[in-house]
Amino acid sequence: MNHFDLVICGAGPVGCTIAERAANQQGWKVLIIEKRNHIAGNCYDCYHKSGVMIHRYGPHYFRTNNKEIFEYLSKFTDWIPGDYFVKSYSRGELFNFPINLETLEKFYNLKLSVKEAKELIENVREKIEFPQNSEEYVLSKVGRELYEAFYLGYTLKQWERHPKDLDASVCGRIPVRFNKDSRYSDYKYQVTPSQGFTAMFQKMIEHPNISVMLQTDYKQIKPFVKPRIATVYTGPIDEYFDYKLGKLPWRSLDFEFKEYYQEYKQPCVQINYPNDFDYTRTVEIKHVTKQKCWNTVISYEYSKSSGDPYYPVPAPENAALYKKYEELAMLEQSINRVFFVGRLAAYRYYNTDQVIEAALKTFNQIQNLNPQN
Amino acid sequence: MNHFDLVICGAGPVGCTIAERAANQQGWKVLIIEKRNHIAGNCYDCYHKSGVMIHRYGPHYFRTNNKEIFEYLSKFTDWIPGDYFVKSYSRGELFNFPINLETLEKFYNLKLSVKEAKELIENVREKIEFPQNSEEYVLSKVGRELYEAFYLGYTLKQWERHPKDLDASVCGRIPVRFNKDSRYSDYKYQVTPSQGFTAMFQKMIEHPNISVMLQTDYKQIKPFVKPRIATVYTGPIDEYFDYKLGKLPWRSLDFEFKEYYQEYKQPCVQINYPNDFDYTRTVEIKHVTKQKCWNTVISYEYSKSSGDPYYPVPAPENAALYKKYEELAMLEQSINRVFFVGRLAAYRYYNTDQVIEAALKTFNQIQNLNPQN
Repeated sequence: MNHFDLVICGAGPVGCTIAERAANQQGWKVLIIEKRNHIAGNCYDCYHKSGVMIHRYGPHYFRTNNKEIFEYLSKFTDWIPGDYFVKSYSRGELFNFPINLETLEKFYNLKLSVKEAKELIENVREKIEFPQNSEEYVLSKVGRELYEAFYLGYTLKQWERHPKDLDASVCGRIPVRFNKDSRYSDYKYQVTPSQGFTAMFQKMIEHPNISVMLQTDYKQIKPFVKPRIATVYTGPIDEYFDYKLGKLPWRSLDFEFKEYYQEYKQPCVQINYPNDFDYTRTVEIKHVTKQKCWNTVISYEYSKSSGDPYYPVPAPENAALYKKYEELAMLEQSINRVFFVGRLAAYRYYNTDQVIEAALKTFNQIQNLNPQN
Repeated sequence: MNHFDLVICGAGPVGCTIAERAANQQGWKVLIIEKRNHIAGNCYDCYHKSGVMIHRYGPHYFRTNNKEIFEYLSKFTDWIPGDYFVKSYSRGELFNFPINLETLEKFYNLKLSVKEAKELIENVREKIEFPQNSEEYVLSKVGRELYEAFYLGYTLKQWERHPKDLDASVCGRIPVRFNKDSRYSDYKYQVTPSQGFTAMFQKMIEHPNISVMLQTDYKQIKPFVKPRIATVYTGPIDEYFDYKLGKLPWRSLDFEFKEYYQEYKQPCVQINYPNDFDYTRTVEIKHVTKQKCWNTVISYEYSKSSGDPYYPVPAPENAALYKKYEELAMLEQSINRVFFVGRLAAYRYYNTDQVIEAALKTFNQIQNLNPQN
């Protein structure tokens, strides 16, 4: 079947973005092949049987500093403000998280000026000049007591690895603030699609040139489809190469969704549980979707090492193995015009905006290919 | 691509049923090709942007007398009772519909025993022994006054044809009752899938052997897919044959969905408007889905002659044209193993249970084919 110009494995943000560009910019015929029974990848949101909208694969807090990405997506959705607030449950109480001035005041039971807070942290933090891992990073930033209250347990649950054995970047993603800004993240555009992510991605790919093949294993179809221009592969890179260099480790998640007969159950969208319970966090996405209903759903997230791949494990040996796969991928790109892009294919933690940026870059690369004979 | 045993054009009730049987009963590999961006055909239900579940293509009141069909579908869904009540708005008031004892009492402003009601109807009905069309049928059943209050205007709106020019069967589907049973229909099993139709059909086709290709025109893919066993075609029969004998007329619908900020807007799921307004009926499907939410959505249905095909037009000349297409279809079946089944392919008004019954019959035919060489 060489009816298609572009074959895309994976109907997540990358697949939808490249398909949209290819159809609208180039008029190409696109086939998207997707293993699951829906589009939108892990951004997939849907209605729970209670009628409450949920983020089926964990919360997606869309935010970006990239105006172009924001404007690009605005063609496919309206937005509502992204009210992303997270608290962390420690010692029987809820604290603002990331750590900010209020977290420090409550934790140390002190009234603190900004100056006093900075002095306090300067006193408790460990003086490690070049932190080599996540533990050293956090100790150097906030000291042992805050580390043990908010970071250590969460990291152990989330990664089943000691922070000592994880790149500094893992905990380095989280800011520490000396003001009362309690938003989860610092970005210029913090917004959420008014009808949800799935509706936004559906809108993107609603084009007569785009076919979407669901519930389909790419490998089974691969021998029969020869795209005229290129293939975009957004699945796990090691799977593409039949794990011939070994398996890349992934963290996976289990979700338990529970309905409550009350308007809201928790004070903000996310609560972290670094030290209590088996779940890492509880999410009440209704705080973000702003759905108006009298009941609510909480998602309990359990981290695990097997199952659908969610997070690459940021440790040096994995980066090394990925590098080897990347070489194969480069070869595959130059020989067979297969482009590897996205969280699973690049073995890299991307936020949604970043992955869409990566997709647009890849689309430009493909556009600039010489026509294939 | 001869990777598939069965290719099915259309992911509606017929497509899903045959795919399910083929995968689970025979272990066949199945490809479903669907023009729209979702499965479940006109049974598709989804959440309106207000968060209220709607029947996107008009209400589906599932009911059947066929225990086997009921039990078959019960493998894929739980049920809730099907509370199907319809009223008709005439002369500024709402009347139970279909006509029952209460309708007659209210219409004639009389207290009536069953016997008196039967006598009344016997007096007003026209004595037509062999009704040749819908007008004659209704006149012979309930007389001119009730005909003009409840049937004539509705039929004109719905079909843009005079009841004189429609088969007797069109209005013959609606019972007249001399008791106070005010349910819309008389069937043994009147139930609705607890999570909706789409969820039920999704469950049916959730099988590793079943691929679903959405947003795809069957004709564009047809040259490239050669199923090993058979093709099932559920689209419009005249379209399959490129309209070479002429176009079969279809009635189509427009839907306008409007949110209201109140728990319920109307007293029952459906109100017919035979003589007032431009819409034929308003539907508040929440009465059936039993969704618990503080707001509601009303769907306004407008009948039209162009657009997606919904209802075959039951008139003699159309039946004759269909017959000619049916001959081509029989030929196509014997030569190319293409099976035509479903509302669009059989140019026949089917209820959901009937169409599933037809699908199961077709599956048996396909099962009994000799293996193709």
